[in-house]
Amino acid sequence: MLRHWDKVRTIRVALLGLGTVGGGFVRLVEREHARIRDRIGLEIEIAAILVRDREKDRGDVDRSLITTTAVDVIDAGCDVVVELVGGVHCAGAYVRRAINNGSHVVTANKALLAATGRELFDAASANGVQIGFEASVCGGVPVVRALRRGLAGDSLESITGILNGTSNYVLSRMEDGLPFADAVKLAQEHGFAEAHPTLDLSGEDAAQKLEILTSLGFDSEVVSRSVHGIEWIDVDDVARARRRGNVFRQVAEARRVAGGVALTVAARELPLAHPLASVRDENNGVVFRGNAVGEVMLTGRGAGSLPTAAAVLSDVIEIGSA
Amino acid sequence: MLRHWDKVRTIRVALLGLGTVGGGFVRLVEREHARIRDRIGLEIEIAAILVRDREKDRGDVDRSLITTTAVDVIDAGCDVVVELVGGVHCAGAYVRRAINNGSHVVTANKALLAATGRELFDAASANGVQIGFEASVCGGVPVVRALRRGLAGDSLESITGILNGTSNYVLSRMEDGLPFADAVKLAQEHGFAEAHPTLDLSGEDAAQKLEILTSLGFDSEVVSRSVHGIEWIDVDDVARARRRGNVFRQVAEARRVAGGVALTVAARELPLAHPLASVRDENNGVVFRGNAVGEVMLTGRGAGSLPTAAAVLSDVIEIGSA
Repeated sequence: MLRHWDKVRTIRVALLGLGTVGGGFVRLVEREHARIRDRIGLEIEIAAILVRDREKDRGDVDRSLITTTAVDVIDAGCDVVVELVGGVHCAGAYVRRAINNGSHVVTANKALLAATGRELFDAASANGVQIGFEASVCGGVPVVRALRRGLAGDSLESITGILNGTSNYVLSRMEDGLPFADAVKLAQEHGFAEAHPTLDLSGEDAAQKLEILTSLGFDSEVVSRSVHGIEWIDVDDVARARRRGNVFRQVAEARRVAGGVALTVAARELPLAHPLASVRDENNGVVFRGNAVGEVMLTGRGAGSLPTAAAVLSDVIEIGSA
Repeated sequence: MLRHWDKVRTIRVALLGLGTVGGGFVRLVEREHARIRDRIGLEIEIAAILVRDREKDRGDVDRSLITTTAVDVIDAGCDVVVELVGGVHCAGAYVRRAINNGSHVVTANKALLAATGRELFDAASANGVQIGFEASVCGGVPVVRALRRGLAGDSLESITGILNGTSNYVLSRMEDGLPFADAVKLAQEHGFAEAHPTLDLSGEDAAQKLEILTSLGFDSEVVSRSVHGIEWIDVDDVARARRRGNVFRQVAEARRVAGGVALTVAARELPLAHPLASVRDENNGVVFRGNAVGEVMLTGRGAGSLPTAAAVLSDVIEIGSA
């Protein structure tokens, strides 16, 4: 009852990267595009795709769209450039070029936003384009939108979250009695951890996501940043905590302090009744504490091909519907 | 880093109703308006307020804005009319008039939307105005935005929620051993239940909210509707469930069935590990199950003066920023 549109508009998408999330995005658009056209009046057309290796098998993907030349994709005159190559250097150059071309940008790249977000958002503003980044934090869980829009009327007091699924999966397996190294190996076998999961286990991945949420939710500067990993936790520590009725979680927290905002990422022992104790396995969860609304919590799958692709697509739809 | 604006815009608000939520809205705007102006570039000006009783003490509210004549407020040429009088008949007439005047509307009125939503949204569309209704479901928890925007790229499979804080508070107190009637009385004493809480306890309030979410999340028609209250539950039932490791919750659910969507509201026994079992007291919680994203859950305070006012204000800000 709540969607209205007069005539179908088309949004042309240039896709950079056809890996886990990029491949999921193509599949999701194929599956959902008729529904989105009929319900929202928006036709999503993927017009060009950048890949690294042209010879690799790409399943059903239309090969005529694929190229290994970035500028061909970025300069194809699309309405929106979806950046899913990851990393900071190439991705940053691609995004800057897209913005200068007057294309909107959608990205899942938290490292890029943490490193150069302010500059990119200034450039986007100067060029009258938007940057969508729902997928950069907590995958398919719409925490960016909840913070930017849903809580826009309230003053934020704190953000407390489990922002890294790998660490949470490892700690969950240690609750089952698995030693740290075995739990990490299992996470890798199940695709929840990279071959080199240092960024995840050290807390740096969670810290990057926390920085993005902090820049959205607080108007003051970050005055302290303390990031610790979970590698020091022993399976015996986890068992002892369990006997006290507690669980370990890698908790990322931003809170107001004198002069600004303090960020911490650290493994913490939480009572079972704590809202974040119920976030298990590879899931993510965030508690926003607002002055008026009290605690609002969002949980769900924080990573994975299709959940992250769904967040990317939600940004494309929002840009296309504006 | 993520907000950009060139010059402050002003949005003029006509407020209908100065009760629990309306009073909270005025207080919240007073508290937050400098932050919203500096951060978003939006000056929120409450230009006229409709009350029923002009003689009542209104605290700090500027008495020159107050009137008992609805048309004076609705026709004051404001950008947005915020409808917080409740009920269906007067509220419906006010909203229709505002839409015909070309004003946007923000409302917390779930009964109005459940009764005449389709007609109102058609009228809004024809007049090129928006209706914001985040506050109509789950108070300060941004479930409407999560569903409309965050999950727009995904096909929804089911919505499962605790949508009525009164029933949940009563069931939570029965877990503590209180008989039904005493639990209802306590809810009334704490302001979580009306003097006549039939709409809450019968499941009808939850059903209205579920209908709003269903119309947003599904493109098919509702083919069955089954609504049951919690009055049949005895404190002994709750204790027996507890011994089985379960809790009772009033669960509202919309799911795809052959030919459309089936709605049910019923008290259900849930295992303690169920995500909705952790939603206690007057809180609300909703689990959206999407084909791509899996389960996304949002929880928080589903009612109350300031949380609901914060949701209203978030809609006003979104309309003002568009």
